[in-house]
Amino acid sequence: MSNAPIVGTFPAGPRNAITDVPGVTVGHCTLADGACQTGVTVIRPHAGNVYVDKVPAAATVFNGFGKSIGLVQVDELGVLETPIALTNTFSVGALAQAQIGVAIAENPEIGRKWPTVNPLVFECNDGFLNDIQAMAVQSRHYDAALAAAGAEVAQGAVGAGRGMSSFGAKGGIGTASRVAGGYSVGALVLSNFGTPESLVFAGRQLGAALDARLKQPAEPEKGSIIMIVATDAPLDARQLRRLSMRAGTGLARTGSIYGHGSGDIALAFTTAYTVPHLTDAPMPAVSMVHESKLDPLFRAAADCVEQAIVHALWHAETVHGRDGHTRRALRDLLPDLTA
Amino acid sequence: MSNAPIVGTFPAGPRNAITDVPGVTVGHCTLADGACQTGVTVIRPHAGNVYVDKVPAAATVFNGFGKSIGLVQVDELGVLETPIALTNTFSVGALAQAQIGVAIAENPEIGRKWPTVNPLVFECNDGFLNDIQAMAVQSRHYDAALAAAGAEVAQGAVGAGRGMSSFGAKGGIGTASRVAGGYSVGALVLSNFGTPESLVFAGRQLGAALDARLKQPAEPEKGSIIMIVATDAPLDARQLRRLSMRAGTGLARTGSIYGHGSGDIALAFTTAYTVPHLTDAPMPAVSMVHESKLDPLFRAAADCVEQAIVHALWHAETVHGRDGHTRRALRDLLPDLTA
Amino acid sequence: MSNAPIVGTFPAGPRNAITDVPGVTVGHCTLADGACQTGVTVIRPHAGNVYVDKVPAAATVFNGFGKSIGLVQVDELGVLETPIALTNTFSVGALAQAQIGVAIAENPEIGRKWPTVNPLVFECNDGFLNDIQAMAVQSRHYDAALAAAGAEVAQGAVGAGRGMSSFGAKGGIGTASRVAGGYSVGALVLSNFGTPESLVFAGRQLGAALDARLKQPAEPEKGSIIMIVATDAPLDARQLRRLSMRAGTGLARTGSIYGHGSGDIALAFTTAYTVPHLTDAPMPAVSMVHESKLDPLFRAAADCVEQAIVHALWHAETVHGRDGHTRRALRDLLPDLTA
Amino acid sequence: MSNAPIVGTFPAGPRNAITDVPGVTVGHCTLADGACQTGVTVIRPHAGNVYVDKVPAAATVFNGFGKSIGLVQVDELGVLETPIALTNTFSVGALAQAQIGVAIAENPEIGRKWPTVNPLVFECNDGFLNDIQAMAVQSRHYDAALAAAGAEVAQGAVGAGRGMSSFGAKGGIGTASRVAGGYSVGALVLSNFGTPESLVFAGRQLGAALDARLKQPAEPEKGSIIMIVATDAPLDARQLRRLSMRAGTGLARTGSIYGHGSGDIALAFTTAYTVPHLTDAPMPAVSMVHESKLDPLFRAAADCVEQAIVHALWHAETVHGRDGHTRRALRDLLPDLTA
Repeated sequence: MSNAPIVGTFPAGPRNAITDVPGVTVGHCTLADGACQTGVTVIRPHAGNVYVDKVPAAATVFNGFGKSIGLVQVDELGVLETPIALTNTFSVGALAQAQIGVAIAENPEIGRKWPTVNPLVFECNDGFLNDIQAMAVQSRHYDAALAAAGAEVAQGAVGAGRGMSSFGAKGGIGTASRVAGGYSVGALVLSNFGTPESLVFAGRQLGAALDARLKQPAEPEKGSIIMIVATDAPLDARQLRRLSMRAGTGLARTGSIYGHGSGDIALAFTTAYTVPHLTDAPMPAVSMVHESKLDPLFRAAADCVEQAIVHALWHAETVHGRDGHTRRALRDLLPDLTA
Repeated sequence: MSNAPIVGTFPAGPRNAITDVPGVTVGHCTLADGACQTGVTVIRPHAGNVYVDKVPAAATVFNGFGKSIGLVQVDELGVLETPIALTNTFSVGALAQAQIGVAIAENPEIGRKWPTVNPLVFECNDGFLNDIQAMAVQSRHYDAALAAAGAEVAQGAVGAGRGMSSFGAKGGIGTASRVAGGYSVGALVLSNFGTPESLVFAGRQLGAALDARLKQPAEPEKGSIIMIVATDAPLDARQLRRLSMRAGTGLARTGSIYGHGSGDIALAFTTAYTVPHLTDAPMPAVSMVHESKLDPLFRAAADCVEQAIVHALWHAETVHGRDGHTRRALRDLLPDLTA
Repeated sequence: MSNAPIVGTFPAGPRNAITDVPGVTVGHCTLADGACQTGVTVIRPHAGNVYVDKVPAAATVFNGFGKSIGLVQVDELGVLETPIALTNTFSVGALAQAQIGVAIAENPEIGRKWPTVNPLVFECNDGFLNDIQAMAVQSRHYDAALAAAGAEVAQGAVGAGRGMSSFGAKGGIGTASRVAGGYSVGALVLSNFGTPESLVFAGRQLGAALDARLKQPAEPEKGSIIMIVATDAPLDARQLRRLSMRAGTGLARTGSIYGHGSGDIALAFTTAYTVPHLTDAPMPAVSMVHESKLDPLFRAAADCVEQAIVHALWHAETVHGRDGHTRRALRDLLPDLTA
Repeated sequence: MSNAPIVGTFPAGPRNAITDVPGVTVGHCTLADGACQTGVTVIRPHAGNVYVDKVPAAATVFNGFGKSIGLVQVDELGVLETPIALTNTFSVGALAQAQIGVAIAENPEIGRKWPTVNPLVFECNDGFLNDIQAMAVQSRHYDAALAAAGAEVAQGAVGAGRGMSSFGAKGGIGTASRVAGGYSVGALVLSNFGTPESLVFAGRQLGAALDARLKQPAEPEKGSIIMIVATDAPLDARQLRRLSMRAGTGLARTGSIYGHGSGDIALAFTTAYTVPHLTDAPMPAVSMVHESKLDPLFRAAADCVEQAIVHALWHAETVHGRDGHTRRALRDLLPDLTA
């Protein structure tokens, strides 16, 4: 397979994946059987116990047509305390329960002497291809994705991206990384947004061509995109919120206007330090990046998100789902994508 | 039983309950068996199909140490599209799935031709009395609470309030209403917050007395309070957000400082009009309340919340739960509460 | 002069200006004398008394490196009560005082029997060309801009845009309009953002070419952009906030990553109805646009903002300012801009 | 004079003033001449150059009926870069210009090679006593208040508090401090809020008594309160935002419901470390307070704010202002205030 077009001028990391940020791993569990075309993707911010060593994080909601769980506490406390789970819109509750179960298994005092744990699950609606009413995703699929987490990241119609659509074509999981300002920045997206006529692919206006190929009636956005940004730059929660805001510029470059029905959310976290759960553990003393040095990180976040969307479209294969529905691979629809 | 002390000067509605706002009903499902002391409370904003006729709403997060689901979309779209569910912190996912199930049963096109549905579940941590790790709450308990919804509201150690604690005593469900500015305002709280020494009960500083009686070691807030405010005043989402902010003043009067570990969230909704799901249905043409006439509603919301907390403490009976834990009724601890 | 390239597919209004939204007028006062290269631009949302007939509005702050005044109250109350003023960063205070003066002259009870008035002034930093330390802008310049307000809108290096820079070239005032979804949408920008190498001009990647032409050392963003969006669609404040969010997508398409030092703010208002100041005046009963019909307005807002930036660059003439500083017109730098 | 009643159980610092937080000083400039009853109060967070050594800060807006300048940038960057100025509502612009002037005098590169400076001015409306239309406050009054800054803080009808009203009586400046959790917390308020019938004075319900004494017709809130909280605890901007939120609980205890017409805003800052302006200066490496140790600071902030309001009322002398208007001292109205 030829290579996807390149966004921006910063160099990519060795894998061009969010896992280029040291310690970050990704796992998928894919369900693909007839009308069931869905799955789970898990991002582990580090290899340890995330509840005990919490991960600084913050989010921006560009359009809140979404059913995630966990953002209220992330906003307040500025940390993650579970891995990040992605799935379809009707499986948030199941994965929240799964995350609680895993957290208790690792930390039996949760809900006893310790406080509760904050599940963090994001979703998009894969209902065009997947029979979401069947609610096929279960706790064990979370466990499987978690167990599969590693540095190699499959892209396209895998994991939570199995049933997702973008621009009227097949969407799904994409990832990318950049090295900028002396740090690594990576992104992973669950891409399920976009109307055909608006597609801008790595700077090329392909909307009219795609629309002509698809010849399908216009339909409103019922999609969404989740954008996870990771970095090893030492940033506090306020700075991570700023970083997450820049994901929206990468998204907009692809043609998105944050459509009404699209839940467009970005979350950024750092691996540069952790925050201890235990009250008597020493708090880290961290020199954060000076505010005036953030622009390279901001641009890297934007470029990573755009590149990750390009990768999601580039790698997604045609998928046939419920009721005879099909989403075709963009590369089949527009064979000159590499021109 | 004598009557609870009265907060403020506005008259209460006939039931002094959130159900004095016409159309609002409340149902409980209580689980009380040994180490299982928990439950579900459901608030139905109107008797119809809430997905089809959405209910204007908005929220304020005073302290986001909480695991609710649904607020991202409420913030964006300014409406509820399911009843409001309250439960323990580890059952949010189960009830979210239950709400999706009910919504699909009523509206089979959800997730097919129609978009998805936004579950709305709030929680407090009843882990002192209840074995939350057992995750006893299931979909059928939501269904039971929903089926039980009516105008009479049991208070105290019932429904989601079964295992909750407040000020080192037994907490739980409380409700109240006021008539102000020509409209009805009601509140229902799930009260699980407060340290003994800080208690102010309907204006009386009872913290020192309660602390002396309890003789228990000080412990940090691991509680939370959920405050639901309803009104029949015609308000838009921005005004409802303003109304929800005033719930925090009623809460503060009882001694709360929005403790770090307490998830303190208010949500306000109006029954004055609904917003149609169907794109081609006529949008309501509503004259909202003039901004300068909001103060009586603001004060009524504050008074209702404070009164509802008083009611929760007043009505809560002693409960024995897991591992020999007991929370005693405030009226047993401070027999001169009516003095 | 040839015509600027066209953004998007919606038709423009007759003037391709924010004044295509009925009732909206714009006035400039330009100060151009040696080291003084600055000015004032005023947008009047309607021809009447804006304090008595307040204008629904809401804002999004993409990057808050900015010194505006007035947004706290707009966020709370969802209305404007003065015209919108744009100027340089050190003149916000002067224009706030000017707006108060005008409001009192029209409404002598302000600060007596009536409450106060909320000035609304936005700014960018034109300090590269303009000697901002001289604080040349005075109340009378606001009065002059207000008096000059009309339907014809001069663009480029005029009014508040006189001293502004974009992409290392001359920036300033730009405007545009679109007809979409049965309504008019217009935008006016004060464009003072952008690094040369990032320029995307109406979809063309011109950053490398511009950078090569300018041969100037890279410098961080110290700019900003203010984006004012107007519409005659009946939207409430929550919906207007959603509309203002989409301005950021139009901005991102031009190459912006919301740079750290750039105050990037959008404000949207509607002329479809007004909110009376007087408590006993009847409140309007307005059928708002159904949420699911907002996408055309969202896209129009994005397109208008991008087109307005294109227009600002297209119309801006070369300006010589303080200390021998010059910003050249983009059309001189890149003569094939119309190719 | 006898001592004011005491709020809460934490010990006060030696001055029971915000200046107990080491390094913080306060200065007033009072204008009291006939119909001119107004002034300026300045809080200096440290004795140095605040632009070069910026001060971590964050704010909460409880009710945004207010005309402050500076919060947009504080929200984004999490720092102050000028002293904090308080004044009447029509003088914000004048003081913003004054702050810019002082900042440039100290740092001549501002607006040249350096970026701009963010003025930070809060206001209440003293229009009942003061002829605010006269706009008497000028830059020199800011300079005078700044020059007068010291550790001793006059309270009551002084500085920006000169013309302010609270609960139908005379309000103004109040301050207090507490030692809690091993740190100092202090507050200074500009108190101009409250309706007589709602007064709760250090836990005593005095509203009915005050209302009976005043015998004045009820009028809506047209007031406001600004609450500045300082601490030497090492907190980041997110934690400071949490701290500022607790100011609202102290305010609510005095009877406030955050009235519609009252601009109720809290800002918290820390003196524990500073953030350098210069890009190449070393960033501080600070161990922040563990989240679970914040409750004492939260309670201290609430207590300080309530105590500062008590002090403002306690110290405020009767003032005669414009058009024969008078606000009487609370201690004259309720002589048994110390009972």
